[in-house]
Amino acid sequence: MSSTSRLRSLNIDNINPHVKAAKYAVRGELAIKSEEYRAQLKHKNPPTPPDSPLPFDTVISANIGNPQQLDQKPITFFRQVLALLENPGLLENEEALKSSFSYKQDTIDRARWLLREIGSVGAYSQSAGAPGIRQSVADFIERRDGFPSDKDQIYLSAGASSGVNTLLHIICANPKTGVLVPIPQYPLYTATLSILNARCVPYYLDESHAWGTDLNVIKEAYDKAVSEGTDVRAVVIINPGNPTGASLPEQDVEAVIRFAAEKKLVVMADEVYQTNVFVGKFHSFKQVLCKLQKASPGTYDNVELASLNSVSKGMVGECGHRAGYFELVGFDEEVRAQIYKFISIMLCPPVIGQCLMELVVNPPKEGDPSFELYNKEYNGVKNGLKERAQALYEAFKEMEGVEIGEPQGSMYLFPTIHIPQKAVEAAKKADRSPDEFYCLRLLDATGICVVPGSGFGQKPNTLHLRTTFLAPGTDWVGRWTTFHKEFLEKYN
Amino acid sequence: MSSTSRLRSLNIDNINPHVKAAKYAVRGELAIKSEEYRAQLKHKNPPTPPDSPLPFDTVISANIGNPQQLDQKPITFFRQVLALLENPGLLENEEALKSSFSYKQDTIDRARWLLREIGSVGAYSQSAGAPGIRQSVADFIERRDGFPSDKDQIYLSAGASSGVNTLLHIICANPKTGVLVPIPQYPLYTATLSILNARCVPYYLDESHAWGTDLNVIKEAYDKAVSEGTDVRAVVIINPGNPTGASLPEQDVEAVIRFAAEKKLVVMADEVYQTNVFVGKFHSFKQVLCKLQKASPGTYDNVELASLNSVSKGMVGECGHRAGYFELVGFDEEVRAQIYKFISIMLCPPVIGQCLMELVVNPPKEGDPSFELYNKEYNGVKNGLKERAQALYEAFKEMEGVEIGEPQGSMYLFPTIHIPQKAVEAAKKADRSPDEFYCLRLLDATGICVVPGSGFGQKPNTLHLRTTFLAPGTDWVGRWTTFHKEFLEKYN
Repeated sequence: MSSTSRLRSLNIDNINPHVKAAKYAVRGELAIKSEEYRAQLKHKNPPTPPDSPLPFDTVISANIGNPQQLDQKPITFFRQVLALLENPGLLENEEALKSSFSYKQDTIDRARWLLREIGSVGAYSQSAGAPGIRQSVADFIERRDGFPSDKDQIYLSAGASSGVNTLLHIICANPKTGVLVPIPQYPLYTATLSILNARCVPYYLDESHAWGTDLNVIKEAYDKAVSEGTDVRAVVIINPGNPTGASLPEQDVEAVIRFAAEKKLVVMADEVYQTNVFVGKFHSFKQVLCKLQKASPGTYDNVELASLNSVSKGMVGECGHRAGYFELVGFDEEVRAQIYKFISIMLCPPVIGQCLMELVVNPPKEGDPSFELYNKEYNGVKNGLKERAQALYEAFKEMEGVEIGEPQGSMYLFPTIHIPQKAVEAAKKADRSPDEFYCLRLLDATGICVVPGSGFGQKPNTLHLRTTFLAPGTDWVGRWTTFHKEFLEKYN
Repeated sequence: MSSTSRLRSLNIDNINPHVKAAKYAVRGELAIKSEEYRAQLKHKNPPTPPDSPLPFDTVISANIGNPQQLDQKPITFFRQVLALLENPGLLENEEALKSSFSYKQDTIDRARWLLREIGSVGAYSQSAGAPGIRQSVADFIERRDGFPSDKDQIYLSAGASSGVNTLLHIICANPKTGVLVPIPQYPLYTATLSILNARCVPYYLDESHAWGTDLNVIKEAYDKAVSEGTDVRAVVIINPGNPTGASLPEQDVEAVIRFAAEKKLVVMADEVYQTNVFVGKFHSFKQVLCKLQKASPGTYDNVELASLNSVSKGMVGECGHRAGYFELVGFDEEVRAQIYKFISIMLCPPVIGQCLMELVVNPPKEGDPSFELYNKEYNGVKNGLKERAQALYEAFKEMEGVEIGEPQGSMYLFPTIHIPQKAVEAAKKADRSPDEFYCLRLLDATGICVVPGSGFGQKPNTLHLRTTFLAPGTDWVGRWTTFHKEFLEKYN
C-alpha cells in the first residue's frame, strides 16, 4: 500500500480545469505578497539573509476597494443597530444605552423592528432573505426610481459577488453560452464564466471618451460572437464602472436596453457604485427600463433585468459583512423557481448582513434623532473620497508617461502607463507582462499594492493599472511619485 | 421589435440543465408552503374562499436544523463579544458595560483582541480568514485531537456548506468524476454534484445497525462505479450523521481512511455535529488519521483529508451567521493555490461570522469570569436537546407503523414509516411519492414541516422522514400523534 499511498488523489493536472483556467488578479500574487509584507512588518520579523529590511513601514492595499481596512470609519447608526441585534440583552436597559452610549430612540426602535422581522440574527432566514427586509429594499428602489418594486423580486445575497455567481449559474447552459462583458471589467465576471465553462464575449470600453459604453462596439462584439457559434444570452454593464469609474448617461443606458430587447439578452446591471458618482448622475437600469416600458407599452414587457447592489461600496464600505441584493425584472416564473432552489442550497445570506442592507437602503431621515450624525458622517466619507481621488489624480498628472482622465466615480483610478522599452524587455526576461512588472516593482519598493491592467483586460498594446483612492494622507502618493521617477530613470 | 421582445432570453428549457437537475428538498415545496402558512398566520389574512381557516395556529419548522428559529437562546458570551465588535464605541465606557449590562472583563478583553486581529468587521479579511482566527482554530484542533494543526491549512468559510461547495468545485474535473456519498445524506452533496455535472456514487448506510457505515458496502459501491467508468476521487462521510444521527466508532473511521489511502480518495469529513453526540463518542477523522500516521510512518503521509465544522450546529446554533471552516491535511501545494484562488473570487467569508467561529472554538475556560454562565447555558441547551430527542422518540415508538432506533446524536430523527396501501395509491394519484404525500398531509393538518426520506435518499421500498427535535414543548408532538392516528384510520 505504501507505494500507492505516496500518490495523491488531487494534483494540478487532474483537478477541475475550469477552476484552473479562472483568473482573479485582485487577490492574486501581488496581493498575497503584500500580505506577507504586512505580516513581516507586524511581527517585525528580522529579515533572513540575503533579504534586506523592507524599504517601507506600511503596506498600502490599494488593490481592492476595502475602505475600512484603511481608515474609513463605519457609520455609527448602522453599527449601533447591529450591536443591538447581536446582543438584544442591551435593549433591556434603554436608559443606560441612551445616557452612557448616546443611543438615540430611532436606533433602538429600528433594532426592535428588525428583531421582530428576523427573530434572531442566529436563525436561518428565508433563502431570498427575510420578507420584511426585502420589502424595505423594494421601498427604497421605489423611492429611488419612482416606479414600483416588488419584494418577491428581491434576492438578498452574500455581497453582490454571490448574486453574480447565482445569475451566471442559471444563465450558462453549456459551453456555447456567451455573456457580453465590458473590458476592462471587474474580473469576477470572467472568472465565474471560466469556472462555468462558458464564453466571455468581450466588448471594449472607450478610453478616449471617458471609458464610455459604445453601442456599436457592443453590436460588433455580439455579431462576431454569433458568427462564431456563440449563443449570447446576457450583457453585463458595470455602472458606475469598475475599474474605470465611468458613469453612463441616460441615453447609453437606454441604448443598451433597446439592444437587449432586440437580441433577447438578459441585462445584468452591476450598480454597486451607484452612490459613488462625482461627475454626472447615476441612472439605474430599472428606472430607464420602466420609462421605456411606460413610453412604449408592450414593447419592453419581457426585458429581463437583474440589477445588483451591495453594502460594500458607497459611503458605507461594509465589505466584511458580505451583504447585497439583486432585483429581477421580467424573469420567467419557472426560471425564478430555479434561482430559488439554487440559492436555497446555501441556505441563506448572512442575516446580520441582511439587516445592514436594510439600514443602508433605509437610513435615518431628516428629523430623525440619528439623522444629524448620520448625515455628517456620510458627507464626511463622501467628501473624503472626492478629495483623495483628486489628490491622486493630480499626482498622476505630474508623472511622466502616465495618462489619466478626471476622476468620475467608483473607488478607482485606471490610468494608462507608458513603460520604457528597456523595462518591457526586463519584464519579458522575468516572464511578466510589463504592467505586472511595474506593479511588482512598485510593491517591492513602496509597499503599495495595485492591480495591473491585465487583471481587468485592456486593449492590445495598452497598459494600465487600477488603484483605489481610499488610502488617507499624501505620504503614500509621494512614495509612488518617487518610485515612478526612479523606475523611469532606471529604464530610460 | 414587439414580436421578438415578447420572447424571453431565459426559460426552463434553456437555462443551465445541471442547476435544473439539482434537488434540495430541505427547502423545497414543503418548506415554501410552510412559509406561506406562517405568513398567513402572522398577518391573520382572512382565508379566501374556498379555503377554510388553517387548522393550527403555529408552524413548526422541523424541516431544518435552525435552533434559534424555535426557542433556543444564543449563548450570552458569544453575543456580547459580537456586539462589541459591531460597535467598538461601547468599549469606550467599560464601567457602564459592566455595571448596567453585566459584561465581564474576559468578554471585553476578547473583543479587544479580535478587533486587533481583524481591524474592523466591516473590512474584507484575507480570503481564507483572518490569520489570528485561523490560528485559534488550529489551536482548538490541537487541543481536541492531541496532534498538531497548522493555521495555513485552515480555511474559514460562510458555513460548512460553502466549504463543501469549494472542495467539490476543485475535485470535480469532468462528467466522469465520482464522489462516494452516503445514502441517506444531507442533500447538499448530491445537489452540488448535480450542479457540477459530476457523479454521485451512493453507498447505503445500514439502518439495521443504527445507520452504521459498512466498509464492504462502500467497497462494492466503489467497484461498481469504477466498472462503469467512473473516476472516483473522494468519499464523503457525515459523522455524526445527517439525517441519521449515527456516530461512528473509531474502527469505522480507521477503515474509511485505510480504504481512502488504498484507493487514493480524498476524504471529506463533514463533522458539523461533532458535539451533538448522545451515544458513543466523537472520533475526528484528523485524529484517527494522525494516529495511523504515527503507528505506520510513511504509509498514510499523503492521505488527503478535508474536515468541516460550523457554528450552525452543536450547542451554538448560530445558523444565521453563516460561519464555518475546513481543515486540509495532505493536499498538494499547487492544488491549495487553486483553492485559494477559487475562494478569493468571493473575497472572504463574513468577518463577524469568522469572529463567532473563534469564540465557538475558544470559549471561556474554567476560572474565567464568563465561564459559569457560559457553562450553564451550554449544558442547558445540551440537556434540552437530549430531552426533546427522547420525548419525540417515545412518541414515535407509540405510533403504529413507525420504526425508530434510539436517538444517537445530531439534531434529527429519521424513522421508517410504513404507509398503508390505500395511501400509497392516493399518493400515486396525486403524483407524489408516498413519503412526500404523508409529509404534505402532516403539514396541512398540523403545521409541522418535515422532510420526506426521498429528499435524502433511501433504500428502494423503504420510506422515512427526517424531523428535527428542536421544537420545544409536547403540544406539537401531540398534534403529530393525533394526525398519524387519523391518517392510518383514513387509509387503512
